[in-house]
Amino acid sequence: MTERRGVSRRSLLGAAGVGALAAGAAGGYAVAATRDEPVAPDPDAVPVAFEGRHQAGILTPAQDRLHFVVLDVTTESRDELVSLLKEWTQAARRLTQGNEVGVYGAVAGTPLAPPEDTGEALGLPASGLTLTIGFGPSLFERDGKARFGLDGRRPDELVDLPAFSGDRLDPALTGGDIAIQACANDPQVAVHAVRNLVRIAFGRASVRYSQLGFGRTSSTSAAQVTPRNLFGFKDGTANVKSEDRDVDDVVWVQGSDGPDWLVGGSYLVARRIDMRIETWDREPLAGQEAIIGRAKGSGGPLSGGDEHAAIDLAAKGADGEPAIPTLSHVRMAHPDSNGGAKILRRGYNFVNGTDGLGQLAAGLFFISFQRSPAQFVRIQRTLAGSTNDALNEYIVHRSSGLFACPPGLGAKGFWGEGLLG
Amino acid sequence: MTERRGVSRRSLLGAAGVGALAAGAAGGYAVAATRDEPVAPDPDAVPVAFEGRHQAGILTPAQDRLHFVVLDVTTESRDELVSLLKEWTQAARRLTQGNEVGVYGAVAGTPLAPPEDTGEALGLPASGLTLTIGFGPSLFERDGKARFGLDGRRPDELVDLPAFSGDRLDPALTGGDIAIQACANDPQVAVHAVRNLVRIAFGRASVRYSQLGFGRTSSTSAAQVTPRNLFGFKDGTANVKSEDRDVDDVVWVQGSDGPDWLVGGSYLVARRIDMRIETWDREPLAGQEAIIGRAKGSGGPLSGGDEHAAIDLAAKGADGEPAIPTLSHVRMAHPDSNGGAKILRRGYNFVNGTDGLGQLAAGLFFISFQRSPAQFVRIQRTLAGSTNDALNEYIVHRSSGLFACPPGLGAKGFWGEGLLG
Repeated sequence: MTERRGVSRRSLLGAAGVGALAAGAAGGYAVAATRDEPVAPDPDAVPVAFEGRHQAGILTPAQDRLHFVVLDVTTESRDELVSLLKEWTQAARRLTQGNEVGVYGAVAGTPLAPPEDTGEALGLPASGLTLTIGFGPSLFERDGKARFGLDGRRPDELVDLPAFSGDRLDPALTGGDIAIQACANDPQVAVHAVRNLVRIAFGRASVRYSQLGFGRTSSTSAAQVTPRNLFGFKDGTANVKSEDRDVDDVVWVQGSDGPDWLVGGSYLVARRIDMRIETWDREPLAGQEAIIGRAKGSGGPLSGGDEHAAIDLAAKGADGEPAIPTLSHVRMAHPDSNGGAKILRRGYNFVNGTDGLGQLAAGLFFISFQRSPAQFVRIQRTLAGSTNDALNEYIVHRSSGLFACPPGLGAKGFWGEGLLG
Repeated sequence: MTERRGVSRRSLLGAAGVGALAAGAAGGYAVAATRDEPVAPDPDAVPVAFEGRHQAGILTPAQDRLHFVVLDVTTESRDELVSLLKEWTQAARRLTQGNEVGVYGAVAGTPLAPPEDTGEALGLPASGLTLTIGFGPSLFERDGKARFGLDGRRPDELVDLPAFSGDRLDPALTGGDIAIQACANDPQVAVHAVRNLVRIAFGRASVRYSQLGFGRTSSTSAAQVTPRNLFGFKDGTANVKSEDRDVDDVVWVQGSDGPDWLVGGSYLVARRIDMRIETWDREPLAGQEAIIGRAKGSGGPLSGGDEHAAIDLAAKGADGEPAIPTLSHVRMAHPDSNGGAKILRRGYNFVNGTDGLGQLAAGLFFISFQRSPAQFVRIQRTLAGSTNDALNEYIVHRSSGLFACPPGLGAKGFWGEGLLG
């Protein structure tokens, strides 16, 4: 709907381009600098701030759509990496505020040069776009050798995640030097941002993989309606929310954790979780609810109450068995089953065509943010293995990545400045 | 945004499910029959009519998101095919009106049976969902033998599209027995519909391929804002619109065309067109505009005027050359270059991960509707071949399908009743 309601974010030159081209006049293009004023209070026209103590896109209320990209740096020159990060930051400042990349955008400048922006978001509002960057272990070293002069700068915790029981990881979808998470309420805006960042990277970094998510599966604010995953269940009811008192402790790297360049940042885990939806769909309703530990309709825990009722792991059913079954997902993932460990989830539903066996290739692109990877590892170790989480019969983890997301920045900083500046 | 503004379309049983399960009472589930009344005039809460002289999803103003699926019928039993089409129709009636599949939906009925609906659209409005079905040549005959007793029922024009110069078709993405186009403003609603139709088909039809489209690239109503494709250009400005005087003549099979079962229907062409976006992005602005024949900013034709100005193929620039270049896309695709042939386009932008060469796998999933496949063939023959449409350097056709979409139906009909009833 955004497109139709959209407040134009850019002043289009319109017929100026036509005239210039028809006349063959290279100097006929002007810089598009002014911007239209919003004519209606469209929430998508109000950009999310790019600057701040933390990067946006983590505690920001989860937007509806995702484009996630992982890149490998193809240059080994520190200078080129720094230039890339500076150019990306400059572009991200503009993109997140609803502007095109570069001074001249897609329709101004000289007609004899390629446009600075690819143009497919012309006329669309900012749409809540956030761009969040993270650095993988392989950015710091490869084959035991430091890269980019980053000897000793890798956080001890920034190593490939351990193998979990049941993992079936595709190497092409695992690891990677740099991750960029683009979230927006209009997918065209998220795709446009990633596409332009990839373009800027040409000759310095290339796409390892990219994943679109069509629907969010978590809320990160208490003000949001809880969405549903492709098992048909409300997902993220008990997720950490930006309003929680302990949210800083769960999400942000603290001064006592170090390293300095990462304080105020967070660790990002990304895992593509394929769902065996055809098998799931044959499970009786009561079975599905027992596997999840919640009612499918209301989302309320099987221990009773509505969606937001506290989970009572001790409650018993009329048969004397635990109301929330021993192997149910909410029990296994609960902080009480994991030494208090919590993570902020920010995943998305996806469908990637067909599985080649006559079914849809569907699943959940899992993203979480946490102060330490140990939080995720603790919970995933509990969940993994066919003898634990009952959900494992219906899911397969196909990709894995861990990235250290630096803190936010001010008006003059660049992504990774604390590390490479 | 839909999710947050959404008017609940279904009366959720909420805690009823919990109580029934906790008590182990199989009879504790009730039928969810009542529906919430809309509390605000949300356009997405008003469903698109399923019944009518024509199928919806053709002239319906193009919705924002697409899930397109092509299936192969795996049974050779006519009775099973008819049953499938009847069950699909029943499901489509409910889904398009914002209801779940089946009488019991996803949370009512007996907890000892699998839910009739998969549940991920619970709480979401109808979101403009349309479901449009078409039958491919291979439904009628395979290896020279008629299937399902359909001897002599295949329209003469329903044959595989001819090979076009430059085609690089993937056999797995080409052909197919049945196509279903799901369009909605919320992608979760479109995916939910396709997923449930695929589920219903189990044992009778399986998925050949499926494609999501994140953003429409055509308008089909004069009331719509023209969207942009991934070349950054407005697309579909000169598309046939539902308000056009000749729209019936362009889109619908007429009584004089036959066969009878297809009168009031239309032919659907689907082609996945991959874009070489990295190459395109290096083309100067003037070059891009000359290849398309329009200004990138305004969308106005290079012969002058704003986006909706008539294209003047005879106009000359200051240099005496045609203002709209000889090989430009708008010139080659123009009815005047194709004996008056027109088609109704209804395509979508897509990104399918990575091309494996460090770039995004991006393109346009082309869909068009026309009274006769000859209209598409006429235009595509003009466009195809590297010596014709200048755009061919930047695109590759990777899939192809032709499907005959039956007319609309009334309160009691089923999809394909005129053919198989």
